[in-house]
Amino acid sequence: MAEHLSQSELDYPFKLLEYFNGFRVSKVIFSACELGVFDLLLRSQEPLSAQHVARELSTSVDGMERLLDALVGIEILEVETTDGTALYSSTDVANLYLAKGSGKSLHDMIIYQSQTIYPLWNNMADAVREGKNQNEKTFGLPPEDIFQAIYRSEEEKLKFMGLMNSSWVLDGHDIVTAFNLSCFQEIVDLGGCTGALAREMAKAYPSSSVTVFDLPQIVETAQKHFSQESNTVVFQSGDFFSGEIPPADLYVLARIIHDWPEEKCLTLLRKIYDTCKPGGGVLLVEALLFENRRGPVMAQIFSLNMLVQTEGRERPPSEYTRILNKSGFHNVQVCRTGKSYDAILAVR
Amino acid sequence: MAEHLSQSELDYPFKLLEYFNGFRVSKVIFSACELGVFDLLLRSQEPLSAQHVARELSTSVDGMERLLDALVGIEILEVETTDGTALYSSTDVANLYLAKGSGKSLHDMIIYQSQTIYPLWNNMADAVREGKNQNEKTFGLPPEDIFQAIYRSEEEKLKFMGLMNSSWVLDGHDIVTAFNLSCFQEIVDLGGCTGALAREMAKAYPSSSVTVFDLPQIVETAQKHFSQESNTVVFQSGDFFSGEIPPADLYVLARIIHDWPEEKCLTLLRKIYDTCKPGGGVLLVEALLFENRRGPVMAQIFSLNMLVQTEGRERPPSEYTRILNKSGFHNVQVCRTGKSYDAILAVR
Repeated sequence: MAEHLSQSELDYPFKLLEYFNGFRVSKVIFSACELGVFDLLLRSQEPLSAQHVARELSTSVDGMERLLDALVGIEILEVETTDGTALYSSTDVANLYLAKGSGKSLHDMIIYQSQTIYPLWNNMADAVREGKNQNEKTFGLPPEDIFQAIYRSEEEKLKFMGLMNSSWVLDGHDIVTAFNLSCFQEIVDLGGCTGALAREMAKAYPSSSVTVFDLPQIVETAQKHFSQESNTVVFQSGDFFSGEIPPADLYVLARIIHDWPEEKCLTLLRKIYDTCKPGGGVLLVEALLFENRRGPVMAQIFSLNMLVQTEGRERPPSEYTRILNKSGFHNVQVCRTGKSYDAILAVR
Repeated sequence: MAEHLSQSELDYPFKLLEYFNGFRVSKVIFSACELGVFDLLLRSQEPLSAQHVARELSTSVDGMERLLDALVGIEILEVETTDGTALYSSTDVANLYLAKGSGKSLHDMIIYQSQTIYPLWNNMADAVREGKNQNEKTFGLPPEDIFQAIYRSEEEKLKFMGLMNSSWVLDGHDIVTAFNLSCFQEIVDLGGCTGALAREMAKAYPSSSVTVFDLPQIVETAQKHFSQESNTVVFQSGDFFSGEIPPADLYVLARIIHDWPEEKCLTLLRKIYDTCKPGGGVLLVEALLFENRRGPVMAQIFSLNMLVQTEGRERPPSEYTRILNKSGFHNVQVCRTGKSYDAILAVR
């Protein structure tokens, strides 16, 4: 993405054609993940033929062979041919991030992107035309209640929670250490979902107490499907829009503000301001845009993602500062992590 | 695509996340194309605000602003902010390849990829599982007759022909000059569609006669929608599977063999062999795989594309040589162009 579209593109548009091909590269990885290719190769002690993989995963040999070859082409798998038989093996990157087992697995993120986000983006032109999400056109769901759409079935809810969980596995540590938060005794992660970020918080600040606050159905599912042996965080049920929020020194809002129009963000932040202990604060975790509108590409594209799926958007630091000040907070500090998500701290 | 997935990916999978994001980058460009962004910016004599673009193209301002920003992020547009207003302008690459007007426009290729190929690829996991195309699941069309699916409506037929047309605008010259074909007096392009490749052929070999042979409905549409002022090529209607083919010195099969299973390819090539004049030959134009299965990525991904949409596949040179020899042809020569499509020449 960082490569410059240079003059040589005018002779032959290699980079453009690569962009056109982007959806296919995504789906090569996503399909392999859905079919269990990376899990099988991780479990296997030796390289496997396409026939073997196809048999184990109940797929066609022909289709599997093409899929494995494309994965070799993008350097996610390796191949060696001996006596005319191609034998495929995994790479460290695939074992770590694409197989299910690993603690750093992005498997759940991939499933959600493949099965929910990919179809939504098929209606991006309409989202831009209408300026609103495409839950109705894509899934026949009312566009008004975005979390009714996101949590429309047990299966979809689990997939969404998996997505959230895997992204904090990646960025969580950088986020919680972006600022020294050890002065905050009671930390509440509002909309903290599976607790993945809260657990990173508890690990980094062992003398603080960390509570995950989310809707009853989310807390229930988090405890059932995403619980960890070490119970370093507490879960509490509630609705931060319609109900009360628990008192705390620091409130975390990770990928919450970006879901909503400004009006609702202000309502929420003012409620936090009113409940927040003196000297307390709020930590926003979002993908920050540059002020000059020139990037980062990932954040710009997330903002389109918010358009097609929610009522929100990504923002540059100046916008968060303005909204936070308008809610009463001051001393806004911004830390870009250089990864997907950044951190913004403000105090009461 | 050429960057190596290095050890540093293990620390943080930037490249993997870019791959996951590929479908969104594709759809950013595709959506802008569908909405007419590049055409408007090309026509405009000055940089335009998001408000202006949105008004002209009847879209939301908010959605358009995000789309324009993402296009800046991937360096397809440029932005300058003066007095708080962001003004967007096009780049040479966008003007040449993404706007409609230019002779090198890839607009039609993009429309087809966005509206037909993107939804098909949503069912890639099933295509690999079943080993067959997903026309039924994606569009409710019978999987047996692939061209009945591809030509299912006037609109779809036109879009498909646009796709074919724009890819020869890119690769046509390299293809027809891959070998010196001046010794062939009568050239027939079987399944030559809009005649784009045939016209390149006529330009490179002005003393040869070039005929496009395709189904009656295709010839009719080609003459109606894709005709050129200089009539350097002749159109002739027929069906190369069920009917006779015209006599010629050289038969061109550009992206025909990759649509069909080997059996049908052999039937067609044997018919060509029988009709071909002595000393005549056949030119296959396809995306060639490497023998070692390690690339090129584009050809490997085209082969998956053939799986999800047709009955065919991409092949390495050894496979084409084998099939051509089996049909009676010999002296098989292969020329890789380094672009998307390559050329294979064999003589009777």
